[in-house]
Amino acid sequence: MSVLETINSPADLKQLKISELSTLAEEIRKVIVDVVSRNGGHLASSLGAVELTIALHYVFETPRDKIVWDVGHQSYAHKLLTGRRENFQTLRQYQGISGFSKRSESPHDAFTTGHSSTSISAGLGMACAKRLKKDPAKVISVIGDGSMTAGLAYEGLNQAGGLHKDENMIVVLNDNDMSISRNVGALSSFLSRTFSARYLQGFRKEFGEFLRSVPKIGDDIYQLAKRSEESFKTFVTPGMLFEAFNFDYFGPINGHRLSHLIDILNNIKLLNEPVLLHVTTRKGKGYGPAEKNPVYFHGVGCFEIKTGNCISKGHTIPTYTQVFGDTMVTLGEKDDKIVAVTAAMPEGTGLAAFAKAFPDRFFDVGIAEQHGVTFAAGMAVEGYRPVVAIYSTFLQRAYDQILHDVCLESLPVVFAVDRGGIVGEDGATHHGLFDLSFLRSLPNMVLMAPRDENELRRMLVTALSHNGPIALRYPRGSGAGAVLEDPIRPLPIGAAELIEEGGDVVLLAIGRPVLDALAARRRLAAEGIDAAVVNARFVKPVDMALIGALVQNVQRIVTVEENIRQGGFGSAVLEGLNDAGISGFRMVRVGIGDQFVEHGSQKILRKKHGVDADGIVEAARRVCGRHPSGPS
Amino acid sequence: MSVLETINSPADLKQLKISELSTLAEEIRKVIVDVVSRNGGHLASSLGAVELTIALHYVFETPRDKIVWDVGHQSYAHKLLTGRRENFQTLRQYQGISGFSKRSESPHDAFTTGHSSTSISAGLGMACAKRLKKDPAKVISVIGDGSMTAGLAYEGLNQAGGLHKDENMIVVLNDNDMSISRNVGALSSFLSRTFSARYLQGFRKEFGEFLRSVPKIGDDIYQLAKRSEESFKTFVTPGMLFEAFNFDYFGPINGHRLSHLIDILNNIKLLNEPVLLHVTTRKGKGYGPAEKNPVYFHGVGCFEIKTGNCISKGHTIPTYTQVFGDTMVTLGEKDDKIVAVTAAMPEGTGLAAFAKAFPDRFFDVGIAEQHGVTFAAGMAVEGYRPVVAIYSTFLQRAYDQILHDVCLESLPVVFAVDRGGIVGEDGATHHGLFDLSFLRSLPNMVLMAPRDENELRRMLVTALSHNGPIALRYPRGSGAGAVLEDPIRPLPIGAAELIEEGGDVVLLAIGRPVLDALAARRRLAAEGIDAAVVNARFVKPVDMALIGALVQNVQRIVTVEENIRQGGFGSAVLEGLNDAGISGFRMVRVGIGDQFVEHGSQKILRKKHGVDADGIVEAARRVCGRHPSGPS
Repeated sequence: MSVLETINSPADLKQLKISELSTLAEEIRKVIVDVVSRNGGHLASSLGAVELTIALHYVFETPRDKIVWDVGHQSYAHKLLTGRRENFQTLRQYQGISGFSKRSESPHDAFTTGHSSTSISAGLGMACAKRLKKDPAKVISVIGDGSMTAGLAYEGLNQAGGLHKDENMIVVLNDNDMSISRNVGALSSFLSRTFSARYLQGFRKEFGEFLRSVPKIGDDIYQLAKRSEESFKTFVTPGMLFEAFNFDYFGPINGHRLSHLIDILNNIKLLNEPVLLHVTTRKGKGYGPAEKNPVYFHGVGCFEIKTGNCISKGHTIPTYTQVFGDTMVTLGEKDDKIVAVTAAMPEGTGLAAFAKAFPDRFFDVGIAEQHGVTFAAGMAVEGYRPVVAIYSTFLQRAYDQILHDVCLESLPVVFAVDRGGIVGEDGATHHGLFDLSFLRSLPNMVLMAPRDENELRRMLVTALSHNGPIALRYPRGSGAGAVLEDPIRPLPIGAAELIEEGGDVVLLAIGRPVLDALAARRRLAAEGIDAAVVNARFVKPVDMALIGALVQNVQRIVTVEENIRQGGFGSAVLEGLNDAGISGFRMVRVGIGDQFVEHGSQKILRKKHGVDADGIVEAARRVCGRHPSGPS
Repeated sequence: MSVLETINSPADLKQLKISELSTLAEEIRKVIVDVVSRNGGHLASSLGAVELTIALHYVFETPRDKIVWDVGHQSYAHKLLTGRRENFQTLRQYQGISGFSKRSESPHDAFTTGHSSTSISAGLGMACAKRLKKDPAKVISVIGDGSMTAGLAYEGLNQAGGLHKDENMIVVLNDNDMSISRNVGALSSFLSRTFSARYLQGFRKEFGEFLRSVPKIGDDIYQLAKRSEESFKTFVTPGMLFEAFNFDYFGPINGHRLSHLIDILNNIKLLNEPVLLHVTTRKGKGYGPAEKNPVYFHGVGCFEIKTGNCISKGHTIPTYTQVFGDTMVTLGEKDDKIVAVTAAMPEGTGLAAFAKAFPDRFFDVGIAEQHGVTFAAGMAVEGYRPVVAIYSTFLQRAYDQILHDVCLESLPVVFAVDRGGIVGEDGATHHGLFDLSFLRSLPNMVLMAPRDENELRRMLVTALSHNGPIALRYPRGSGAGAVLEDPIRPLPIGAAELIEEGGDVVLLAIGRPVLDALAARRRLAAEGIDAAVVNARFVKPVDMALIGALVQNVQRIVTVEENIRQGGFGSAVLEGLNDAGISGFRMVRVGIGDQFVEHGSQKILRKKHGVDADGIVEAARRVCGRHPSGPS
C-alpha cells in the first residue's frame, strides 16, 4: 500500500512523519502525471505546488482554516489529499472532478475559481468575516506570480495593508519564474526562516527605532538615503512591493523543501497580522518534459508519459485560433499599422507567430485584460489598428474598458474573441457564453461570428477596415475544414447570408452552429420539413432586411447561438422583428438556458444543452407543431 | 484686461513671464469658483491642479505632446487655457462644455474620460505608438493618488516598467492627501529638483556601482540589508512603489510652487524613459471653504461663493440614496450579519451613516470595484450578508467578478446599484444605462428596480432575505415623496404590481418611470385611450404570469425603462412572451436607443431621449395606431 492510499483526509496526512512526506510527494506526482496524460489538464502548475500543498495541509486545518487557491488549476494535489483520491481519475471529465477549485465538490475547497487573481480579495473577505465572528482560524490565499499582474490582486493587497492588523490573512506567493538570484534567495531564506516568529517582530521594531536616530548622530542624510535605496534594491527587492502594502514579508524560500516549508508555516501560524510568504517553485517539477517546457505543459491535452509527446487524435484541420494567428501574420506584413495585444496568452490566442514576426508591434500586457483594452484604445488614438485577442471568458474583465474607453469614442479597436461558446473540459468558469449579450448592448460596437475559418479570415479583414469598435467571436477547437480563399474578401457590414431556401421554417444561426443548422436541414428534409438556413454573420447590426423578409413569408423561426439566451442573438432578432412591426410568427431560441454550464467535452455539453443538430431539429419540429418523434 | 483674457491657446501662455503665472493662477481659480458656484461641478480637484496645469502647458506643447488627465474632473484649468475660456460658463450644461476630458471637444483633450485610472494605460498606448512612429513627442499622464488604488492603474504601471526604456512616458502623480511628512518632502524635493536632469542619471549609476561593491569589502550583509530596508522606508517611501516598477521617480515636490514645477518639468523633458513625478497638491487650494471641506467640494452643486454654503433649491424630499443609507442603519441594528461595502463612495452611496454606526462592518475598498465585489463574495462564504453599494456606471468595472465570483456560486450578495439611469450633468461616462442589460443575462441573479423610495426599502429587505445574488437599481436624485411604511414588508420575488387596469394599452414600466407611466395614463385618458399601468418591479425574473395574461387581452404594450434598449427590460419582456408562445401583439419599447447619452439636466435628457411621460404618451399613441397629435 502506498502512502497516498492511506490518506483519505488531511487528518490522515497529519499522522505521517515529516520524513514520509517526500515519498508522498513523489506518489502524488505520479498520479497527477498519469491522470493528466490521459485526461489533459493543468499539469505544470499542479506539479509545482505539490510540496506546498502537503506543507499547508500538514500545518493548517482545513476546512476550519481556509486555503484559497488562486485560479485553482494548481490544486490537483489538494484534491488528492482532501477525499477525492478515488475519483481523481475522472478529472475534467463530464460529471467528474473539476479541474479547478469548486465549493460544491468539497468543504476543503474554500472558493470557486477559474479566473485568476481573485484569491486575495476573497481571502480577505473571509478574514474580515472571521475577525467579526472572533473566529481565530486562518485564511491562506495561494497566488502565482503571474496572477499578481492583474489589477484585482493589487486592489486586494492594497485594502489588506490598510486594514486591521489582526486579520488572520496569509498570502503565499507561489513564484515559479525562478528569476530571483541565488544570493538574494539565500539571504532572505535565512532571514525569514530563522527569525520569522514573534521574536523577529520585536527585533525589527527595536532596530527601526535605532535607525530613526541615525540622522541625528550626523550621517549625511543624502548619502544615507541614496545608499539605502540602492542597497535595498539590490538585496531585498522581492519584499519591497509587499512591505509597501504593510504585509510582513518572508522569503523567498524554496517551495520544494518540505521541512523548511513546514518550519516557516508553523512560525507564521503564530503571527496575527497580514503576512506574505514568498515561495519559489518550479513549474512541472519532477516530470522532465514539463520542467523543460512548462509553457506547453501549463494546460495540455493527452500525452505519452515517457516522452511527453502529444498523443495526436489525428486532427489535421487547423483550429480557429491557428487560422487567426496565421492570418494576423499575413495581414501584418501588408499593414504596419496593425498591432496585436494579448493578456498573457500569446500561445493560446495564436499570436505567438505575430509576436515572432513583428516583435515591436506585439504587446503582451500580462493577466491584465482591463489595461490591455485601454492600452489598445491609446494606440488607436494615435492611428494604429490594434487587434486585442482575448478569450471570451477573460474579456469579461474588460467590460467597462470596452464600453468607456473604446465604444464611447468609437475607436477602431478589433476584438478577436477566442473560445466563444462552450469550451469543454475547463468548465463553468471558462465557457464563453456571455459575450454576445454583453457586447451587443454597447453603442458603436459591431459584433460578428464566423461560420467557419474562412469566414473568420474575411471577418478579420472586415474588422481591420472598419473605422470603429468591432468584435469577431469564434470557438475553441478545430475549424470546419473550409478552403481558405485568397485574396481575403471583406464582408459588407450587417449583411447575413441566405445559404439555403426553405418554406417551412427558417434556421437562423450565428457562428459555428451554422454548420449544425445545415446538418439539421438535411434531417428535417427527411421528415418533410423544408428549412431555410441563414448564416447571420452579424449579431449587431443584425440583418433585419433579409430576416424580416424571410419571416414574413415563413413565420416559423429557429434562432441558434452558442451563448446564453438572455440578451443574446435570438433576443436581438426578437427586438429587430418587434421594432420592424413584424408579429404573429413563432420562434424558438436555441441557446444556453439561464444557467451555468458544467465541464465535459464540447460534444457532450452541446448535446446536453441542445445546441447541436439534434437540438435544432427538435426546435424546428416544435416550431412547426410536430410532436417530438421519440428520443432523438 | 486680465492675464487670462489674453490666452486663447497654450501658445499665448508661453509668451508670459514666469512671474506673471501666479496672477494667472489666481484668475483661473476665480473663474472656476464662479462658474462652479453656479453650475456645480468638481471644484476641489480642479482648484488643486491649477499650477500643475499651467506648468505642464508652459513646458510641453499640446496637442503635439499629449496630456492625459485621469478621470478628467481636474481639467477645468486645462479647458480655460486651451481655447474654451469663452464657453466655460456653459460647463456641464446641456450642449455646453463637458465636465471631463473629451476628445471631440478639443484637440488638446488627448483621451475621453470620466471613470478613474485609465490614464496610465491610455498614455502608455500612445507612448508605444509614438515610439513605433518615431514621434519624439511626450505623453504625460496625470493621475491622482485616489485613482492609484484601482487595479487598472497598477496593470498599466506594471506593463510600463517592463517595456522599452525609450518610451516617452511621464506619469505625474497628483497626490493631494498631504500625508507626506515635511522632512521627507524637503529631502526628496532637494533630490529631484537639483539633480533631476541627465547629471543625476549618471551619478546614480556610478553610485550604484560603488554600492554593489560594498559587500565585498566586508560589511555584514545582514546588517546592511536590514539597515537599508528600514532607512529606505523612513526616507524614500513614496518612491519605493514606483521604482519597483522601473519608473524613475522624482519628488515629492510642492505642486503649487510654479517655478519649481517648471524647473523640474524642463529637466524631466530631457529624459527618454518612463518617469514618475510625484507632486503634492491641496484639494480646493485657494478657496477657503473647499480647502476646509474637500470631500464636500469634490463634486458639488450650486453654492454661495462667500460662505461656501449650499444654495438650496428647496428640495425637502430625501433622495433615493439617503433613504437607502438610513434604511441600512435601521436594518444593521437588527442584524449584525449585514455588512456594507463601497468603492471610495461612502458619502455618494449614503453609507456614511452606516459607517459611523457600525465601523467594524463597513468596508471602503477604495476605487476598486472588482475587488469590492470579490471581497463581498468572501464575506458571503463566511455567512455574512454583504451589501455592495456602487454607482451603476462604476459597477461595470466588476462585471466579471459579479459573474464569476458571485453568480456562479449563487452567493447571497446584495448589489445596491445607485445612479441607475440618466444621471445628468456628469454625462456620457456616468449615466447608468447598461446595468439592466448586463445584470439580466447572468444566471442566478435577481434584478429589481423600485418605483419609489418606499419600494426601495422593501426591495432592500427582500434582498437581504434572499439566498442568492440580487440587485436593486435606483436613480440619482430625489425620491417621489412616498410615505415610508413601517414595518418594511418584503416583496414576493418575481411579482409585478398591476397599479391601474386599462383596456387599450398596457404601460409596463420598471423603476422610477412607473411614475411617468401613471402621468401618461392620465393624459392618455383625456384622449380616450384607456391604459393599464404595471409596476414590473423585477427585470429578472420578469412576471410573465401577470404580463402574459394582460397581453393576451390587450395586445398593445409599451415597455418603459431608463436603460439602453438592447438586452434590457423590454427585451426581457419580448423574450418572455416569445417563450410563452404569445404572439400577435404590438409592442413599443421606450428606452435609450443605441447611442451614448450626452450631459445635461436629467429633465432635458429624459425628454430628448423620450424616457418621460411625453415619450410614453407618444409610444402609446403609436402602438394604438393614433397619429402623433403635433409636437408634444
